[in-house]
Amino acid sequence: MTRPVFDPRVIQRGARLRRSPYFEATQRSGCRAYTVYNHTLLPSHYDDAEAEYWHLLEHVALWDVGVERQVEVSGPDGFAFAQLITPRDLSKVAVGQARYVVLVGADGGILNDPVMLRLGENTFWYSLADSDVLLWALGVATHAGLDVRIHEPDVWPLQVQGPKSKSLMGDVFGNPVTSLKYYHFAETDLDGIPVVVTRTGWTGELGYEVYLRDAARGVELWEKLMEAGKPYDLRPTGPSDIRRIEAGILNYGADMTLADTPYHVGLEWAVDPDLSVEFVGKEALAGIRARGVDRRLVGVEIEGARIEFNETKWPVRHRGATVGRVTSAIYSPRLRKNIGFAMVPIGLASEGTVLEVTTPWGERGARVVRKPFLDPGKEIPKG
Amino acid sequence: MTRPVFDPRVIQRGARLRRSPYFEATQRSGCRAYTVYNHTLLPSHYDDAEAEYWHLLEHVALWDVGVERQVEVSGPDGFAFAQLITPRDLSKVAVGQARYVVLVGADGGILNDPVMLRLGENTFWYSLADSDVLLWALGVATHAGLDVRIHEPDVWPLQVQGPKSKSLMGDVFGNPVTSLKYYHFAETDLDGIPVVVTRTGWTGELGYEVYLRDAARGVELWEKLMEAGKPYDLRPTGPSDIRRIEAGILNYGADMTLADTPYHVGLEWAVDPDLSVEFVGKEALAGIRARGVDRRLVGVEIEGARIEFNETKWPVRHRGATVGRVTSAIYSPRLRKNIGFAMVPIGLASEGTVLEVTTPWGERGARVVRKPFLDPGKEIPKG
Repeated sequence: MTRPVFDPRVIQRGARLRRSPYFEATQRSGCRAYTVYNHTLLPSHYDDAEAEYWHLLEHVALWDVGVERQVEVSGPDGFAFAQLITPRDLSKVAVGQARYVVLVGADGGILNDPVMLRLGENTFWYSLADSDVLLWALGVATHAGLDVRIHEPDVWPLQVQGPKSKSLMGDVFGNPVTSLKYYHFAETDLDGIPVVVTRTGWTGELGYEVYLRDAARGVELWEKLMEAGKPYDLRPTGPSDIRRIEAGILNYGADMTLADTPYHVGLEWAVDPDLSVEFVGKEALAGIRARGVDRRLVGVEIEGARIEFNETKWPVRHRGATVGRVTSAIYSPRLRKNIGFAMVPIGLASEGTVLEVTTPWGERGARVVRKPFLDPGKEIPKG
Repeated sequence: MTRPVFDPRVIQRGARLRRSPYFEATQRSGCRAYTVYNHTLLPSHYDDAEAEYWHLLEHVALWDVGVERQVEVSGPDGFAFAQLITPRDLSKVAVGQARYVVLVGADGGILNDPVMLRLGENTFWYSLADSDVLLWALGVATHAGLDVRIHEPDVWPLQVQGPKSKSLMGDVFGNPVTSLKYYHFAETDLDGIPVVVTRTGWTGELGYEVYLRDAARGVELWEKLMEAGKPYDLRPTGPSDIRRIEAGILNYGADMTLADTPYHVGLEWAVDPDLSVEFVGKEALAGIRARGVDRRLVGVEIEGARIEFNETKWPVRHRGATVGRVTSAIYSPRLRKNIGFAMVPIGLASEGTVLEVTTPWGERGARVVRKPFLDPGKEIPKG
């Protein structure tokens, strides 16, 4: 590669941070920046963010998301424990199916929003956003009286996203994978490399996740996919924040935190509708559902010139007073608009409400709009 | 500043990562690199690591360690809950005292190694290393049957470390602080900025931590300390890995993980010696204590030319077979040796054992040595 490769020592001090099994391959592929997620380096980009976005829309992209660390729940009471920490009704999830789930604490606050895989009657994986759910699950288990094993298995996901991903998956894995319905998965292998392939992703595009089950074979898996992807112009990129914001997909830590419940951020569809199953936080969520929320995460359009992706939560103002925060904001090249999410008082959450946002480039007008911003008919993110 | 300031956008993608209340001040002070710790940016260095080390040894250094996030435990059963999650005997910790503690899971694995402050009969802070102990504590509380409140308070520590720190603290806070004994603390203020000052630190040098209790006043506190520090040549630096390794201080995530118990890493002194108090993991620790450990973290000297700080855990070999890992390794300018820690089989853990280490610069001879490497008579790290 002639492109300069980023020196991870800018953010790596000692051996505290983990590297995914794909790390060496991402370096050779010219990764230019990493961030840190679940104590692990996450390749952020190899090229300009907008170039990577168009590539995702038109071809197929390969992401090292080994940072999506897994928590495995198993043992005789595995199902009971999984239900205890999951507000969705798991009796409706068959073995071989996955779900987008929101994990909540006893006060209903969101701890994480993983993709959950049901691998067996009593065996579940939680493929995590950025928080130590392993510690949460181990903590709940200390006094829950259930016979369960909880650990982090040696599993490292990749995402393969974009319109050409299905053809690529067909070439590599064949029909058991290409016939997967949304949020279903298959356990298979690639030349003996053990993987689980799900039809899921963080884009709103057609896409898959390939969960490697043997860290020793990471570079080998990466190289096999890169080789098979040549006819489809497969490229390694970072996760696309432009695309996920367009699709209305939230980012844990930015758009929702422990201070928010699913009702505050529009994720009530991921909670058992009649609250009939037993889970930690049920009482709190029932109370909030009955009382209603005082604030809500909404879509916003921000006026004026193209903005850069927000590094901090910009203040939202209304009639001169700070009333909320923009949690994510970015320029959409397809919409040719600045779009994002904002947490605002419930009285200012209806579509068309006019607000102001304090950006690094000054005060901007903004307006509450419907989200997702694109593809409202698509099935995401309600997996 | 004429020195180029690091652009945090290399590691910051969106508003997921938090910034400490000192962030703007660290940028103005010329911080050149940040890492990520507890979902928060940690200033790594402003100058060469060895220059910062000598400054710490000869003068006084100011560290933004706001990443040491706090978990506060309070409520009627605060003491009982704090004891439940802490293997030290808390009946021996008076209000106003702090302790270095090792938190363990039900299997005895280390979850974190915070400094714990007893602020009241039933009120405790855990000042954390890099893991979400908040989720662990909330998880344990779900079924523990104790009346307790657990949350992350608005508290952001700084470290003030080095031989001139006592004079500086005297000028700023006066006698209640300068008369503090090791691992004691005082609640006080600086021109109305509320703080807790502990005599603790991550150096083995004389030092303090100043816990800011109001994030809105971070830059103000920083600037007041910088101004008061001028007569002592106070400089902002990153935490010194050279100094902490010399002192035998471990780094959670590198030198110990959830896979290790206190008995594996030489921290049995932080466990109630007769295991008479009740805490999560007691049974597991009793079993390991009785059976003995199969591996142990030891000090090592590594031969040959000066090494750079290890970014990965280097393989340790013995008679041609890989038997362990170097968890931290660095060059000590005072000892003029490469020193570090290694996890090795118990049969290879005695002083003088000869090993090999696979470094990025080839195979090196190594030898098990006593730790700490310097100042064995000093009171650290047994706070």
